[in-house]
Amino acid sequence: MNDVTSRLAEYVLTARLEDIPQDVRKEARRALVNYMGCALGGSRHEAIDITLAALGPFAGPASTAILGRTERSDPMLASLLNGISSHVHDFDDTTPRNYIHPTSPVASALFAYADNNRVSGAELELAFILGFEAVSRIGNATYPAHYDAGWHSTGSVGVFGAAIAVGKLLGLSQQQMVWAIGLAATQSSGLREMFGSMAKSFHPGRAAQSGYIAALLAQRNFSAGIHALEGPRGFAAVQSAAYDLGRITDGLGTDFDLRVNAYKPFPCGIVVHPTIDACIQLRRKHDIDPQAIVAVRLRVAPLVKDLCDKRDIGTGLEGKFSAYHAAAIGLVKGKAGLGEFTDDVVNEPLVQRVRARVESTGDPSVSEDGVRVEVELAGGQRLRIDLDHSLGNLERPLSDAQLEEKFLDQSGVLPGAQARELISACWRIEEMEDVAGLVALAVPPA
Amino acid sequence: MNDVTSRLAEYVLTARLEDIPQDVRKEARRALVNYMGCALGGSRHEAIDITLAALGPFAGPASTAILGRTERSDPMLASLLNGISSHVHDFDDTTPRNYIHPTSPVASALFAYADNNRVSGAELELAFILGFEAVSRIGNATYPAHYDAGWHSTGSVGVFGAAIAVGKLLGLSQQQMVWAIGLAATQSSGLREMFGSMAKSFHPGRAAQSGYIAALLAQRNFSAGIHALEGPRGFAAVQSAAYDLGRITDGLGTDFDLRVNAYKPFPCGIVVHPTIDACIQLRRKHDIDPQAIVAVRLRVAPLVKDLCDKRDIGTGLEGKFSAYHAAAIGLVKGKAGLGEFTDDVVNEPLVQRVRARVESTGDPSVSEDGVRVEVELAGGQRLRIDLDHSLGNLERPLSDAQLEEKFLDQSGVLPGAQARELISACWRIEEMEDVAGLVALAVPPA
Repeated sequence: MNDVTSRLAEYVLTARLEDIPQDVRKEARRALVNYMGCALGGSRHEAIDITLAALGPFAGPASTAILGRTERSDPMLASLLNGISSHVHDFDDTTPRNYIHPTSPVASALFAYADNNRVSGAELELAFILGFEAVSRIGNATYPAHYDAGWHSTGSVGVFGAAIAVGKLLGLSQQQMVWAIGLAATQSSGLREMFGSMAKSFHPGRAAQSGYIAALLAQRNFSAGIHALEGPRGFAAVQSAAYDLGRITDGLGTDFDLRVNAYKPFPCGIVVHPTIDACIQLRRKHDIDPQAIVAVRLRVAPLVKDLCDKRDIGTGLEGKFSAYHAAAIGLVKGKAGLGEFTDDVVNEPLVQRVRARVESTGDPSVSEDGVRVEVELAGGQRLRIDLDHSLGNLERPLSDAQLEEKFLDQSGVLPGAQARELISACWRIEEMEDVAGLVALAVPPA
Repeated sequence: MNDVTSRLAEYVLTARLEDIPQDVRKEARRALVNYMGCALGGSRHEAIDITLAALGPFAGPASTAILGRTERSDPMLASLLNGISSHVHDFDDTTPRNYIHPTSPVASALFAYADNNRVSGAELELAFILGFEAVSRIGNATYPAHYDAGWHSTGSVGVFGAAIAVGKLLGLSQQQMVWAIGLAATQSSGLREMFGSMAKSFHPGRAAQSGYIAALLAQRNFSAGIHALEGPRGFAAVQSAAYDLGRITDGLGTDFDLRVNAYKPFPCGIVVHPTIDACIQLRRKHDIDPQAIVAVRLRVAPLVKDLCDKRDIGTGLEGKFSAYHAAAIGLVKGKAGLGEFTDDVVNEPLVQRVRARVESTGDPSVSEDGVRVEVELAGGQRLRIDLDHSLGNLERPLSDAQLEEKFLDQSGVLPGAQARELISACWRIEEMEDVAGLVALAVPPA
């Protein structure tokens, strides 16, 4: 395995879009639709405002759109900002085998690059697929040791995908691609100690930016170590107590992790997703009047009691990790998008009232992907639902329509017609001669 | 030790220059003289040209001088470039307790910052001391495990010093300084797998740039984890198999690692320094005619045979790791600056001739800091020297005059008078009202 870096580089450089199976290409477009919605949804977050204020004065020529914003920047800062916005609500995609959110670091660099250079949609889709797969494969090779040690692999592994994707578009030579991977490895960073702060969302942003820089430097023959992944002082040896480098190269070009990519339906702790899903289903089926709710009884996996057992809450952020709030918004609102995790909604009298009537019991017979819910109404009627697989998991993936719905729930910064046009452009990306047209749709009218 | 980050931040924010002992302040100025010379000496390296070509087009307003260059850039890119140039010849300072080169990441960010903001010399010197000490202390706390694992700590630890030094000048609050340390930690990177390539010099450059960015973001209240150093998923736990966090805070404000900072007299592998030093001394003492040399017999530490035993060489880079070339230039040139490790000098007939006559024997009784040399001349005369401590080690530190000589050997990009003026400005930095005047002296005339 002393040539893993070189073999990965060779695959990336020789891969053609026509060699990628159609279902994988479709899944790439689904990932991009999901990504674009998340980037729009996070584009007004304080972390973006701060980063623009702090670093904007030092940015280069404003050649590049920032997704969801009217300001423009240089492509490096735009990569950072796109990475922050697309991850800041913890709403982006996840490869469940390694808990990485691979699209954010890769696509954030790509859309910045594509707004600076003429890139066709087919070229971008291919570069995205290659970057995504590289991230997930390097993630698989080092999971769980790398993540368990405390690395936020979305950043520390994501950087490879950004370098590879931009490097593919730059047309690097084999030697240069190996150097780009080396320059990515030597910028790999991101600690889980940052979870719960803005710095978490900084990770995919910095990974996008660092990977972009790695590719640009390699293009000019800035040399790096040539065994960045497998060398005795390389990424795997230094940043993962155990690893299996074969998982990087085995089945390259045949097996694609895009096929097991998952999309969150709700922007909150994943363990309360079954509760939300079940409550929405109950409400829809029985047309429940929330005013009539007397009691809500949840039977949840014990992990839910460990992680999300707080009922007395006052902020939207707390709401993201409360099974009680999850049940309440499912029953009261019938949905759970970004708008249901605001401070305002958490403090709405009706939501508070229902939340106060929720009881939760840990039950080892309930899987982490399931829940049992009983709602008692004023007339004594009891409504029940047993859910085994929550929406968004691989057994019940979001449909294209649900992905669009999720997108639209986050795209309030755009006029409705423009948002729909952007979705449509993502679906048709393979036909686009210049991705700049798609990026332009992600910018609000001045 | 669950408040190390916070205590370090508090010390840094309350420290005043008048509380720093005079010998430490003097040593800081020596470090800056040495740094400035190295930055000038590396400023024409290909790695700088490449980085400017690759990233310059995306740089922000050209507010900032790049040491040794006529081009200007934004302070972030200038930090990166200063870091590369000051380290690229492996000629910068070293704290022997942890093998870190602390000045490069810290000073590279500071001189970029100081060219953008009005900073007095006293303020810069204090910020430098605090950044340097933070780097060396975090290095001590995690040495040797962190370095042995494969981290190039000049980058991975250097980033803390850059963040702290710039943060001090920005006047961060306690909360913000803690965040700056967090944002530094979560960008900590740099793999020893890159040794032997340009990417090695990228490490202090990127550390300077990342630390600078960390401080700027923290100033605007970009939040980060508050236990970046000591937390269960923080820097020490994740990036060092063993550590002693007490070494970060014990004796803060009393013990200073600047007192044990070492300056390389020769830009080559440290294990051949005794040979060079001894041969220069022999040549000076006996006024040796190199043409008359018949044989040179070295008795060296066995490690020298392991690392630097190549006699048949053709490039300057090879010359840096050849005990034979070390002896030859000491005897032929009587010096060993950057100019003695060029391809041209390696291939000079007289140097080749002497090199061919050098024999080297490993001898366990010779320390790694010593050497025994015997030179036999045409008339049969034998000259001998036994060296126990090589120049540049803590037992025989470079004098101020020797530091100046080293500086001048590297400052060819500047006119001689300007170079001497720059040295003088470094010595007088505490009196300077605006460090921009010093930085201007490090820029060649157009």
